[in-house]
Amino acid sequence: MKDLLSRLRALVGDAHVLTHEDPATDLSAWEQDWRKRAHGRSLAVVRPGSTVEVAEVVKACVAARVSIVPQGGNTGLVVGSVPDDTGTQVVLSLRRMNVVRELDAANLTFTVEAGCVLQDLQEVAERADLLFPLSLAAEGSCTIGGNLSTNAGGTQVVRYGNTRDLCLGLEVVTAQGEIWHGLGGLRKDNTGYDLRNLFVGSEGTLGIITAATLKLYPRPAARLTAWTAVPSLDAAVTLLGLAHQQLGAGLTGFEVMGQFALSLVDKHFSQLRVPLWRDAPYCVLLENSDSESDAHARQQFERLLETALEREVLSDAVVAESLAQAKQLWHMRESIPLAQAEEGLNIKHDISVPVSRIPAFCQETDALLQREIPGVRLVNFGHLGDGNLHYNVQAPEGADGPLFLNSYEEKLNSLVFDAVKRYHGSISAEHGIGSLKVGKLPHYKDPVALALMRQIKQSLDPLNLLNPGRVIEP
Amino acid sequence: MKDLLSRLRALVGDAHVLTHEDPATDLSAWEQDWRKRAHGRSLAVVRPGSTVEVAEVVKACVAARVSIVPQGGNTGLVVGSVPDDTGTQVVLSLRRMNVVRELDAANLTFTVEAGCVLQDLQEVAERADLLFPLSLAAEGSCTIGGNLSTNAGGTQVVRYGNTRDLCLGLEVVTAQGEIWHGLGGLRKDNTGYDLRNLFVGSEGTLGIITAATLKLYPRPAARLTAWTAVPSLDAAVTLLGLAHQQLGAGLTGFEVMGQFALSLVDKHFSQLRVPLWRDAPYCVLLENSDSESDAHARQQFERLLETALEREVLSDAVVAESLAQAKQLWHMRESIPLAQAEEGLNIKHDISVPVSRIPAFCQETDALLQREIPGVRLVNFGHLGDGNLHYNVQAPEGADGPLFLNSYEEKLNSLVFDAVKRYHGSISAEHGIGSLKVGKLPHYKDPVALALMRQIKQSLDPLNLLNPGRVIEP
Repeated sequence: MKDLLSRLRALVGDAHVLTHEDPATDLSAWEQDWRKRAHGRSLAVVRPGSTVEVAEVVKACVAARVSIVPQGGNTGLVVGSVPDDTGTQVVLSLRRMNVVRELDAANLTFTVEAGCVLQDLQEVAERADLLFPLSLAAEGSCTIGGNLSTNAGGTQVVRYGNTRDLCLGLEVVTAQGEIWHGLGGLRKDNTGYDLRNLFVGSEGTLGIITAATLKLYPRPAARLTAWTAVPSLDAAVTLLGLAHQQLGAGLTGFEVMGQFALSLVDKHFSQLRVPLWRDAPYCVLLENSDSESDAHARQQFERLLETALEREVLSDAVVAESLAQAKQLWHMRESIPLAQAEEGLNIKHDISVPVSRIPAFCQETDALLQREIPGVRLVNFGHLGDGNLHYNVQAPEGADGPLFLNSYEEKLNSLVFDAVKRYHGSISAEHGIGSLKVGKLPHYKDPVALALMRQIKQSLDPLNLLNPGRVIEP
Repeated sequence: MKDLLSRLRALVGDAHVLTHEDPATDLSAWEQDWRKRAHGRSLAVVRPGSTVEVAEVVKACVAARVSIVPQGGNTGLVVGSVPDDTGTQVVLSLRRMNVVRELDAANLTFTVEAGCVLQDLQEVAERADLLFPLSLAAEGSCTIGGNLSTNAGGTQVVRYGNTRDLCLGLEVVTAQGEIWHGLGGLRKDNTGYDLRNLFVGSEGTLGIITAATLKLYPRPAARLTAWTAVPSLDAAVTLLGLAHQQLGAGLTGFEVMGQFALSLVDKHFSQLRVPLWRDAPYCVLLENSDSESDAHARQQFERLLETALEREVLSDAVVAESLAQAKQLWHMRESIPLAQAEEGLNIKHDISVPVSRIPAFCQETDALLQREIPGVRLVNFGHLGDGNLHYNVQAPEGADGPLFLNSYEEKLNSLVFDAVKRYHGSISAEHGIGSLKVGKLPHYKDPVALALMRQIKQSLDPLNLLNPGRVIEP
């Protein structure tokens, strides 16, 4: 190990190999996950500054048979980017690789390094009068390499897709320390297997993404936000269909929020003045992006809302009059997780089922949970446009949070995941598997798919040195 | 072999195992490719009627160590779906599996079997007042299984992406005859490696796609087509940027056509009355799909064309007044390959480079070809919105076609492909590799990518029984 550390220092410089050799060094920023569910201990945190350095670090680790945990902004939610507690793993942080290598406006692409922070990329695009549409809560600190390796979702998927849909090319260091030069802004390239999508979403278990060429879009001329009250989840699904039909690709956001979820925002952040939630079981936040003008966007929105009101798929609606008001509405939506935390401990799920089956799924599962664990409170909200719900469960009112979690977490997860399986859904819609759900996968994933995944992992990383124990167990 | 044939007959029924045992049987529909570049000889053509039958056929072939050539509509352009001439391969035709298993309008998806003909699927969608946007010349006879396995492109990629972008789930029979049940209409599912995209575009070399869940879209309220004359390729690229900006996702088609290509249409199909081509080096066909109304689409189009005229990025334009006129304009575009055939033998390329580099690529490569082979005539047209050109070469006027092909095909291909490589482009944008380009790949593809492809092929099909010799050589 001493030899490896010397080698790593020679490769990336002393300042970029951090270890516990000095007991005063605090590595918890790299060793603890964002939700503080795991605190590992690394052999070293290594911070290469270039793709060639990444490749050399991998080769050195392979030679020493030391496993590697790639890490970006370390904001993941499934414990996928922190080391285990053995003190034998190298954390390979991509944060220093944060150069925008090229922006090609006429091709609507930019090529960026893995360590670029998402929000910085949004701003780079904006300065070129373009849009990079990936947007999610952690955008101020997550990195694009992490977004790619987890295929992050977010709030604009209904229009622009997940991260994989925004990616046209990759540069990847393989498990053997070879560099695949797969960058480039081609919209069409049918020269062989889709390696790009294989690495995207593989959570650093098949290779290390060091750079990517990503799609850009023209900036919409206007963006409008509406907040609506709907009489049921069925109505919300109908509203979604109407919005698809009338707004077309203008529909860039469609978020549903249950009454109890909004009541928590109202309770803990009353200054936000959440609208319309008291008289409706669900509210829906819609965003309309228009390539023409603010006036046209408003007219389109009004046409949609009128039709929906006539057909009784919504009971009331407000359209934000200004950008500030629109931001405030989004802020209410984004305050739900914070309000949940204020209310106490809770159990989070990130599930998806086909959009058409969401109402039946919720009706059945809500009733099931109430029956099995009386008093549980359901904090249901999410990206209905993608069939993706954060179907969270809060302890009964006044219950002891830790005791509740301890007693019911396993049971609740099983109840929810089993229901998801019955509805042909996914137990991880956008957060990934990491180590948190790796043990669940064999119960909920098609066995042939699991076998294929195992064959691929074995084939590309036969020594199991890249992020072992994540996504798929050997 | 006798044993295998008996086994296959027992599995799928006598009527669905066709062989040369009866010398009168003509199997050329299955043994010859669409462009008649290859005529193989099969051991048998087997036509299973269900996924379970496909799996059993694969198992029987594996047991006998007989290789399998999966086939859909057999309209591919790179000799990827016909057997070799050894008489030892089984052609596995998916054509009998042509059921639309489910259409879920609220989820905007349908689940269809591999043998469904593309045009039939477009019509199924239309009857449900929805749009399945994949559209290409062979749509009347190609099957969706073939489209998926080759990741077909077509004319609406600029808005809806390639076939892989339309696919949400797959059912696949593996090289071992196992069935992966990966259907389902989820927009988000981050539970492991992206197997779907690995099989899509793998040309039947990794598994056999038997069914898919595909995206549907609301039908646009209006679709308008314009034909414009542009002063240069640079201007065409600028026009594309303007169209992206002003039409947003309304831009559903953007085709460029060189003057010589159009002159051939005019020469051989003068009754079509191609507009505007005489005074401009290039014409561009644009399509605008609008979710609002015909009037709005027209107004948007006129705004765009006025801006473009003012900025001198186009010199003239006509907007189709009716659906019939629009069809006629598309028909002219689609007549280019036919006019080429009328003119005589020619050499076809299906290449892509970043959109921004198209003008420089063409200028350099046009000049290079003229220099190297005086008198060659360039038939340049294609999906400029995707950076994809059908950069074809016609023999010099009056030249002996077969002699020209014989003398120059290799040299011309090398000149074009080398230029593509210098521009970081693709030697096969939308047609795939098949056996036609498999020998070229090692010269034009990143060596690490090739090694990864080989590892994956070896891992999923270790006996090399699925479409051997296509895409990647062992």
